[in-house]
Amino acid sequence: MLSAHDIGFYEKHGYLVLPGQFSAQETGLLLRETHRLSQLEIPQRILERDGEQVRSVYAVHRHSNAFDRFTRDLRNLEPARALLGSDVYIHQTQLNPKAPFQGDVWEWHQDYLYWQRDDGMVEPRALNVSVFLDEVTEFNGPIFIMPGSHRLALDDETRTAQDGWENTLTADIRHKITPDALRRLADSLGLVSIKGKPGTTVVFDGRLLHCSPPNLSGNLRSVIFIRYNSVDNPLRQIANPRPEWLASRDPKPLTALADPFATTIADVRSPV
Amino acid sequence: MLSAHDIGFYEKHGYLVLPGQFSAQETGLLLRETHRLSQLEIPQRILERDGEQVRSVYAVHRHSNAFDRFTRDLRNLEPARALLGSDVYIHQTQLNPKAPFQGDVWEWHQDYLYWQRDDGMVEPRALNVSVFLDEVTEFNGPIFIMPGSHRLALDDETRTAQDGWENTLTADIRHKITPDALRRLADSLGLVSIKGKPGTTVVFDGRLLHCSPPNLSGNLRSVIFIRYNSVDNPLRQIANPRPEWLASRDPKPLTALADPFATTIADVRSPV
Repeated sequence: MLSAHDIGFYEKHGYLVLPGQFSAQETGLLLRETHRLSQLEIPQRILERDGEQVRSVYAVHRHSNAFDRFTRDLRNLEPARALLGSDVYIHQTQLNPKAPFQGDVWEWHQDYLYWQRDDGMVEPRALNVSVFLDEVTEFNGPIFIMPGSHRLALDDETRTAQDGWENTLTADIRHKITPDALRRLADSLGLVSIKGKPGTTVVFDGRLLHCSPPNLSGNLRSVIFIRYNSVDNPLRQIANPRPEWLASRDPKPLTALADPFATTIADVRSPV
Repeated sequence: MLSAHDIGFYEKHGYLVLPGQFSAQETGLLLRETHRLSQLEIPQRILERDGEQVRSVYAVHRHSNAFDRFTRDLRNLEPARALLGSDVYIHQTQLNPKAPFQGDVWEWHQDYLYWQRDDGMVEPRALNVSVFLDEVTEFNGPIFIMPGSHRLALDDETRTAQDGWENTLTADIRHKITPDALRRLADSLGLVSIKGKPGTTVVFDGRLLHCSPPNLSGNLRSVIFIRYNSVDNPLRQIANPRPEWLASRDPKPLTALADPFATTIADVRSPV
């Protein structure tokens, strides 16, 4: 599925953009699920600072048959396997339905710092497969990255809040890279903005520095992030781990589904 | 100076972009003044929510000979006169040195709502001449606008905080357009992003809806805003007006300077 050029690009820059991976019917179905999940009053739903708009829903593959099947769609699974060089399992899923005018910034961060420090991940053999469910524009919260930053360990440039893991979920992030380090990295690596039509996939390394500005448009901007980890890289035991819905400890290899959406469409049409 | 096409564009869309108005030497000089002004501990300097970074400095034409002369540069003054159809005076100046990684969002707003309600401006015969002192990119806080919104009175769609005018200066803005109205306007008018090289001028109507995302880059993004009002539109007396440095009550016509920068460069070189 991925070409040698794709793999080379990913290894060099830490990310890969694959437009047109999912049809309008498919993203439309997942958007209806996004709407349903956003209304569930569950601990996995995190609100913005305003206490009203939904910032994220975690573990959507456990709350939605459609998203569960989506994580086993070959179009998501195969790039993860190819780039990690092994079978994979789901470390975490996160749905970010960035609200019109109120969806807030995500500051620059490396996901792997959280997985390593808060979850006990041993090696950076994990990545994001993110899929745009809405069109992502310069106005509604595109994804900014620093290409090549996936090769950097930033332990010495990171300041960690002293309170609990709950802060990993809010706009006031827990593991902050110092402004001096960010400035130096931005100067040397440059910045890239990723935008695209619904159905665009962005695969990126767990260590790639990324951020996202607020949604200043009048439209919802939903992106689903599937964090796959290599089955050869299970979490070690740590004190006070984050809950299972943020960091799965079951490294069972995922198997692909032949036709993930056919059944899902029928499921969603039936009353819940 | 402005062409008939420029004037027609402005009247229709409410804004006008004029690249290459100022040289690198000129913007460089104003950036050195920006640095100096940002260090002054004066009431006109407003900090970001973090209490550290400088969000704005107001009345810079009263604290800086260079900016004072700049407001009388024909390249700023003449577009204002031509578009307002009269002589003009300075209602307000505002310098926004949006800090790397920490310069915060400006939500969607109409300047005129503030000038009308907080300052007693009678008619919307005022405009912004804003000049980019740094390059403005998609990463460091471009200016988003809704073209055509300058023809709209939004009194019924505005919710005003009940506390004092100080809130007009912070990220938590005082006169908020309702999300429903913003969504409707964004749908019908569309959004435009204004970016450009240092020395680019953006002229825009006092009623044009605009906003700006945070600066997520490693570089300062300084923009100077000169708010010119028609001398035929002086402020009326109101209870509890904002201070003179936010809303001048001296509608004396500005006269152009022959060579605004020649003297300024010498001034800045001399010890202050």
